Amino acid sequence: MEGEHRAGTSERSSVGPQAEYDELVRRSRERALLGSCSSLLGWDEQTYLPRGGSSYRGDQMALLAGLHHERATDPSLGDMLARVEGSPLAAVPGSVEAANVREWRRQYDRSTKLPRALVEEIARATTVAQGEWVAARAASDFARFRPWLEAIVGLKRREAECLSAAGSVPYDALLDEYEPGASVADLGVLFESLRAVLVPLVEAIAGSHRNRPAKPEHADYPVDRQRIFGEAVAGAIGFDFGRGRLDVAAHPFCSGIGPGDCRITTRYDPKDFTDGFFSILHEVGHGLYEQGLDPSHQGTPAGEAVSLGVHESQSRLWENAVGRSRAFWEHWLPLARQVFRDPLHAVDLDAFHASINRVEPSLIRVQADEVTYNLHILIRFELEQALIGGDLPVADLPLAWDEKYRRYLGITPPDAASGCLQDIHWAAGLFGYFPTYTLGNLYAAQLHARADADLGGLDPAIARGDFAGLLGWLRERIHRQGQRYRAADLIRLATGESLDHRPLIRSLRAKFAPIYDL
Amino acid sequence: MEGEHRAGTSERSSVGPQAEYDELVRRSRERALLGSCSSLLGWDEQTYLPRGGSSYRGDQMALLAGLHHERATDPSLGDMLARVEGSPLAAVPGSVEAANVREWRRQYDRSTKLPRALVEEIARATTVAQGEWVAARAASDFARFRPWLEAIVGLKRREAECLSAAGSVPYDALLDEYEPGASVADLGVLFESLRAVLVPLVEAIAGSHRNRPAKPEHADYPVDRQRIFGEAVAGAIGFDFGRGRLDVAAHPFCSGIGPGDCRITTRYDPKDFTDGFFSILHEVGHGLYEQGLDPSHQGTPAGEAVSLGVHESQSRLWENAVGRSRAFWEHWLPLARQVFRDPLHAVDLDAFHASINRVEPSLIRVQADEVTYNLHILIRFELEQALIGGDLPVADLPLAWDEKYRRYLGITPPDAASGCLQDIHWAAGLFGYFPTYTLGNLYAAQLHARADADLGGLDPAIARGDFAGLLGWLRERIHRQGQRYRAADLIRLATGESLDHRPLIRSLRAKFAPIYDL
Repeated sequence: MEGEHRAGTSERSSVGPQAEYDELVRRSRERALLGSCSSLLGWDEQTYLPRGGSSYRGDQMALLAGLHHERATDPSLGDMLARVEGSPLAAVPGSVEAANVREWRRQYDRSTKLPRALVEEIARATTVAQGEWVAARAASDFARFRPWLEAIVGLKRREAECLSAAGSVPYDALLDEYEPGASVADLGVLFESLRAVLVPLVEAIAGSHRNRPAKPEHADYPVDRQRIFGEAVAGAIGFDFGRGRLDVAAHPFCSGIGPGDCRITTRYDPKDFTDGFFSILHEVGHGLYEQGLDPSHQGTPAGEAVSLGVHESQSRLWENAVGRSRAFWEHWLPLARQVFRDPLHAVDLDAFHASINRVEPSLIRVQADEVTYNLHILIRFELEQALIGGDLPVADLPLAWDEKYRRYLGITPPDAASGCLQDIHWAAGLFGYFPTYTLGNLYAAQLHARADADLGGLDPAIARGDFAGLLGWLRERIHRQGQRYRAADLIRLATGESLDHRPLIRSLRAKFAPIYDL
Repeated sequence: MEGEHRAGTSERSSVGPQAEYDELVRRSRERALLGSCSSLLGWDEQTYLPRGGSSYRGDQMALLAGLHHERATDPSLGDMLARVEGSPLAAVPGSVEAANVREWRRQYDRSTKLPRALVEEIARATTVAQGEWVAARAASDFARFRPWLEAIVGLKRREAECLSAAGSVPYDALLDEYEPGASVADLGVLFESLRAVLVPLVEAIAGSHRNRPAKPEHADYPVDRQRIFGEAVAGAIGFDFGRGRLDVAAHPFCSGIGPGDCRITTRYDPKDFTDGFFSILHEVGHGLYEQGLDPSHQGTPAGEAVSLGVHESQSRLWENAVGRSRAFWEHWLPLARQVFRDPLHAVDLDAFHASINRVEPSLIRVQADEVTYNLHILIRFELEQALIGGDLPVADLPLAWDEKYRRYLGITPPDAASGCLQDIHWAAGLFGYFPTYTLGNLYAAQLHARADADLGGLDPAIARGDFAGLLGWLRERIHRQGQRYRAADLIRLATGESLDHRPLIRSLRAKFAPIYDL
């Protein structure tokens, strides 16, 4: 009897809210672990996978996606979640527990709306399509890629339908995957405000009496030296190579595979070191965020990045606000002159600074300057709404793409490789992802302005090669917060201001007015 | 009624032996797919994983091992298997179906004897221990590695106990994992026959009036040139780089990750190209086997390598019988002279051939010559029996190791790095694996002798750089056979003879008698 009584007590405690919360944590970590295996396979696919392994890689990704989905939609998970949601544990606003429960609910509701077969099919199709995209881009052959893109658009439309409430915009459901809470309606207003300022700014720069600064001299930048220089700067900024690495990929990316394993990639142009270098800085910004997450919450929302927009704010901040600043090159140009002696030994700091901030409408998004960049995003944002909404057949994409480039940037791609085949995103099924790049630029400008004010001016330290103050500020305000708050709230808490396009405009004017004497 | 009748018919057919066999194939492929994810993670661990990612990699490996084990021990699998075993499908000797059913039974019986927790713990511990081994070997610090090895020996002893029938030798159960059907009793006889001939042969060579040939000149062999030369030879032999790749690892290995994705590794010594080059040839031999498996049976035993002994026979055959032959260098030395001009431009074919066939007792197994190599294996075979049998505490391993090197080879390691820390195998939990290396040498000698007879002499084609005849012969007799027969039967079918130590002895005498004028 006494034995039974004890068993009863223990059973009650083992199913109380705390015990159920602990079980939710355990399962969340198991899903993260499974997801980390997919991440490694995805990284490998873009770095080292032999051509002939692409189709089997698709099967591997589909299997792991299916196993993940099975766990993410387990009805017992939903039951536990419902009980913990109603308990005091989840009731403290701003607590780790409340944040985890809120985000698990969001994930569970999204996952249970998607059939496992669709999840697996998307994983398989996007894996193979990325290999096909590489080949099609190399041949600048849209027709070759078209059936794959049609299949993926079809799959993503089905996904959006599954996820959308009746009467809502299907594209919003895709956007929500990357930027929880964002909507076409809100973003449309923001993008329009930006466009209204950027287009005249681009025109003013084009009409400036100042000569457009020369491009960085195209010369001989040996790839091994680019890599050594890039790693030196990345390490100095704070990227930990004991817990990460740098490789080469056709499309630079960062993958936070797990705690202690964050991988960035770049690509090297032997005739121009800035392309590969700024890609490294960009991915380092992502990597610092991943490496700065709170390890005690690893595998749960509180230990994960909050949104892609905020993720992009970190990469943009280091790439542009820091890496394209005059102060940054005060410190690093002397080393660059030693490493790339022939092309750089005689270059002057101001001329170099102007050359890496040259503004000019161009065809390739990832090489675009800070002013025109968001117009590239606007084009993709509009096109993918049309593709997902069913208003634009994939077959008509190249024409629609070229038309928008003519309209917003005044230029026309000579071929598909520098047109609608330039990005890997759609091959990877990433619809709703592009707008987070512009959100990132907006957040980055707000964060940089606030850090500059809080720390009494960032430039002097940056000019000494000291990045610890800025990194510490970002660690505390952003990285360690994980998903404790949604992105919009996190930015408000960090900067004291809501999302706003004006800080970005101010920072662009502050940088480009002197360069172009506007 | 008619509807019901039809449903009944359809149900009978959907659970008949053919349908159940098809379901067993489907599940076998799913397990292979899951295993291939582990293979990729294992490859990455030894090539590109950042130091800080080691512990999480252990968790990933444990999760995948657990999921695999869950599927491998599913009781419904056992039920289906039992029904198919009793059906005519499994009754045709030598058929693909009979072979698959036989091997599934073996796997199922082994898997169900192992608790999932033990499988996961072994996966986790061996993953982390491999990282620790790398660090301990670099520091030549056995004490650092000792607790890891103790843990692994403990786990493998538990595994052996789970797998062993009462009264049998626990080590046999580990051996059986890599070489189904092999036993300590049989191998002991074989190894003793070899030892009885090899020790006097080594002594005769040491006492030869001929000068020992000079080692290959230690000079400057740039790593990028070593890689280009190695890849050129690998490709010429038949390794398909569209379905595979070559990377660098501390311990060379080959991993058949999936169809279209077979990866080999080597390591480069900038002062001696032969170390890295023969590692490449060795791993290419493994890779050709993996790339030559029958793709229509992929993911089932009929499409998988039959045993590690036979796998090793392929690597040894290409590394030694082909790669260290005079005929091989008739073709390749002229190219090597161009690629490594400074050290090799004046080298003579006979002197080069003698230099790569120098016989001398040495400390490092993977650099040992063909004659002394099997004595290294004998030492490990004896030591791991003692470790698993509980007769040798891990703490005493360094002393026992050194004692055996004194006894069998007459030399003593100056430190742990060139002693008992030299191999990764025990860190990876691979007990019972080493003996398959000597089995591989024995099989290779038999296969080479038979191919030479069947094809009317291999050397003329090899001297022309033509490997198609030999590769075709191996493809047909070995690679495409998968696990249709057990290793011993496969070798008998391929060569007309049972496993025998004499062909290896004959081949060694034939090569080394002229070099040392015995």
